[in-house]
Amino acid sequence: MTGASAVEEALNRLEKTEEEIRAWVRVDAEGARAAAERTAGGPLKGMPFGVKDIIDVAGLPTECGSALRRGRVAAADAWLVDRLRGAGAVPLGKTVTTEFAYFQPGPTRNPHNVHHTPGGSSSGSAAAVAAGVVPLALGSQTAGSLTRPASYCGVAGYVAPVGAWPTTGITGLSPTLDAPGLLAPDVAALARAVAAVDGTEAETPPFIRVLLWPGTGLVGTDRAMLDALERTGRALVAAGAAIGDLGDSGLTGRLAQAHATVMAYEAARALADEAERPEYLSDPLRELLCRGRNIATREHAAALEVRHVVRARMLRLLENTDAVLGPAAPGPAPHGLAATGDPVLSRPWQLLGLPVVTVPGHRDAHGMPLGLQLVGHPDRVGRLLGVARHTEGLVRRITEGAP
Amino acid sequence: MTGASAVEEALNRLEKTEEEIRAWVRVDAEGARAAAERTAGGPLKGMPFGVKDIIDVAGLPTECGSALRRGRVAAADAWLVDRLRGAGAVPLGKTVTTEFAYFQPGPTRNPHNVHHTPGGSSSGSAAAVAAGVVPLALGSQTAGSLTRPASYCGVAGYVAPVGAWPTTGITGLSPTLDAPGLLAPDVAALARAVAAVDGTEAETPPFIRVLLWPGTGLVGTDRAMLDALERTGRALVAAGAAIGDLGDSGLTGRLAQAHATVMAYEAARALADEAERPEYLSDPLRELLCRGRNIATREHAAALEVRHVVRARMLRLLENTDAVLGPAAPGPAPHGLAATGDPVLSRPWQLLGLPVVTVPGHRDAHGMPLGLQLVGHPDRVGRLLGVARHTEGLVRRITEGAP
Repeated sequence: MTGASAVEEALNRLEKTEEEIRAWVRVDAEGARAAAERTAGGPLKGMPFGVKDIIDVAGLPTECGSALRRGRVAAADAWLVDRLRGAGAVPLGKTVTTEFAYFQPGPTRNPHNVHHTPGGSSSGSAAAVAAGVVPLALGSQTAGSLTRPASYCGVAGYVAPVGAWPTTGITGLSPTLDAPGLLAPDVAALARAVAAVDGTEAETPPFIRVLLWPGTGLVGTDRAMLDALERTGRALVAAGAAIGDLGDSGLTGRLAQAHATVMAYEAARALADEAERPEYLSDPLRELLCRGRNIATREHAAALEVRHVVRARMLRLLENTDAVLGPAAPGPAPHGLAATGDPVLSRPWQLLGLPVVTVPGHRDAHGMPLGLQLVGHPDRVGRLLGVARHTEGLVRRITEGAP
Repeated sequence: MTGASAVEEALNRLEKTEEEIRAWVRVDAEGARAAAERTAGGPLKGMPFGVKDIIDVAGLPTECGSALRRGRVAAADAWLVDRLRGAGAVPLGKTVTTEFAYFQPGPTRNPHNVHHTPGGSSSGSAAAVAAGVVPLALGSQTAGSLTRPASYCGVAGYVAPVGAWPTTGITGLSPTLDAPGLLAPDVAALARAVAAVDGTEAETPPFIRVLLWPGTGLVGTDRAMLDALERTGRALVAAGAAIGDLGDSGLTGRLAQAHATVMAYEAARALADEAERPEYLSDPLRELLCRGRNIATREHAAALEVRHVVRARMLRLLENTDAVLGPAAPGPAPHGLAATGDPVLSRPWQLLGLPVVTVPGHRDAHGMPLGLQLVGHPDRVGRLLGVARHTEGLVRRITEGAP
């Protein structure tokens, strides 16, 4: 398919789905057509992509889901947008984010059931990929903002290690936690996009070693999700992998709490100017900023120390293990559009700044997607992607009923 | 000494030295006295400290050495300032920074010879500690902005691993490279301050392993500096350490070049608004921003890939080695006040985001200080500080002529 026809196909599909899904803040059809004409080539030549509306695209506003940023046009592309342009891809427009990438939802609905949330904060990007409009979209994660919508919408997601991809041109919440990432229909497509961004090639190790993690004790993980995890673990063993048990001795719960402290503290400082105009903020965001202002720096420092100590331990563990495999969310997308679900199963890993790949394919009894997440070593992203691709193939065989 | 008398002593010493040294942008005598009265206690009770003027102190302007920021009062303390307050220390005022922590010098002179630069960009903080005004000052490093002035002024310096100490409340140049840090008269005092900030305790390993690094081939390192390095290496061996050779096969030169690419690219984006008012910028800063704007994102991404690959290799090396020991600067502080010296020997390590301790004590034939730097593993800062403290003791014995 030529670049021009890929853009037209995306626009056609968007026309058919958008009224129902509401994934887009702004579509730049003329800009995308012109860019597709101009593009010189590259591994993603002509591929249209969606851009979460906290990420700058030159010439388009970055509105962050907030009236406070209405009409603010970006002068330059964010680093990640520019990298994808360099690989030949074409920004189609801006996708819905929750307000400043926190909890207050935008209008987006889950393509698998429009009465369910798509998750947040990368709501529009996940939904746009799930609805088949674009084969690639940009998101970001501070708590569970990419992994959770990927899981709820049944798409593949990649969260880069904190610090690996610059956040230049991204409106952030927390310098310690923010990480950009990608969403794509499957892990193979995701891996091609990661390779286009930073040259990392997916590589499947000859002998896969994975630790299963049932999720934190803080939330009851859905039975269908635990089944999906167990069946996937068995399939990995049957395919020759070594599977261990990470267990959860309360450690990841403690990490989740430390994460919440770091996030609130830093968000209150990142959005200090916005906090001066509370009449423009949602209740959840006002509450976060107020809570964050009241966190003492010594509490924040204690949370960072938890991160430091556990990260060192986890990196050693991940030197002899390819990934931790766990549920990407406590269960399928909750019913209703007033909230975006619980990020608790991402908080521990985002505190540690580790790369995460969400593997789609499982579904619950109602046909709603259930994602699994693989968490890896920040210096071995290629291996993480390879293990995720392998796992995705096994999930496909499980869910298609093959032996 | 009580807190109040420590503040008075600092003010007295400042009165005696400031006309010559010009280290301070603004002294908050009343605020410091009041804070010393109020302070509840803590490991640094009543200790006055200087704050580089890109770092926020609530109620004081943060002017970044630029007319563009004149009179901009900070609403809240930076994270690091708040941590030190929590330990009982007291901000005495703001110290001179080069313009936006880049190359254009402020008025500060080197206390060891006022015709020589104190180095930059943490010029005032290094000079204020060297002049005996304060026993602690805050700095930051993007290229060599802390290590170099520490070396030139003969004080101890600590650069935190990138990402370990939040940059909240610090006006930065480059999210990938910026790291806060501390300056103190000696490594023991430095280690006490680090412990007060994040709980890291210096620990000397029973068997020290160090790799010597002669500096990059990009610059000729001063003969006196190489002598200081060699003598220190011999003293370490005589005290039972194992010394290897990191050599320099051109690798660190390549890192320094990649560093310059990342810094220019990110600074151009961080200071995009300031670049719109070039009449207020110095020539070096204008040149940096112009160069940075013209760096393609793919060049920046290639530089990040160099960082990624070499960092993984260096971390493995630093798991079996306590530190790399090298010159902290190419030589003593250059003559003249129009420039702040060359950061090239810091660029490789800052690109990798590793913690650095500058060890003072050596001097050249004219009595000008020569600092050595120890570069360590980001997860083993306590060990790095312990090795630095041990090394400082050996340097003291060398320079005092003891056997």
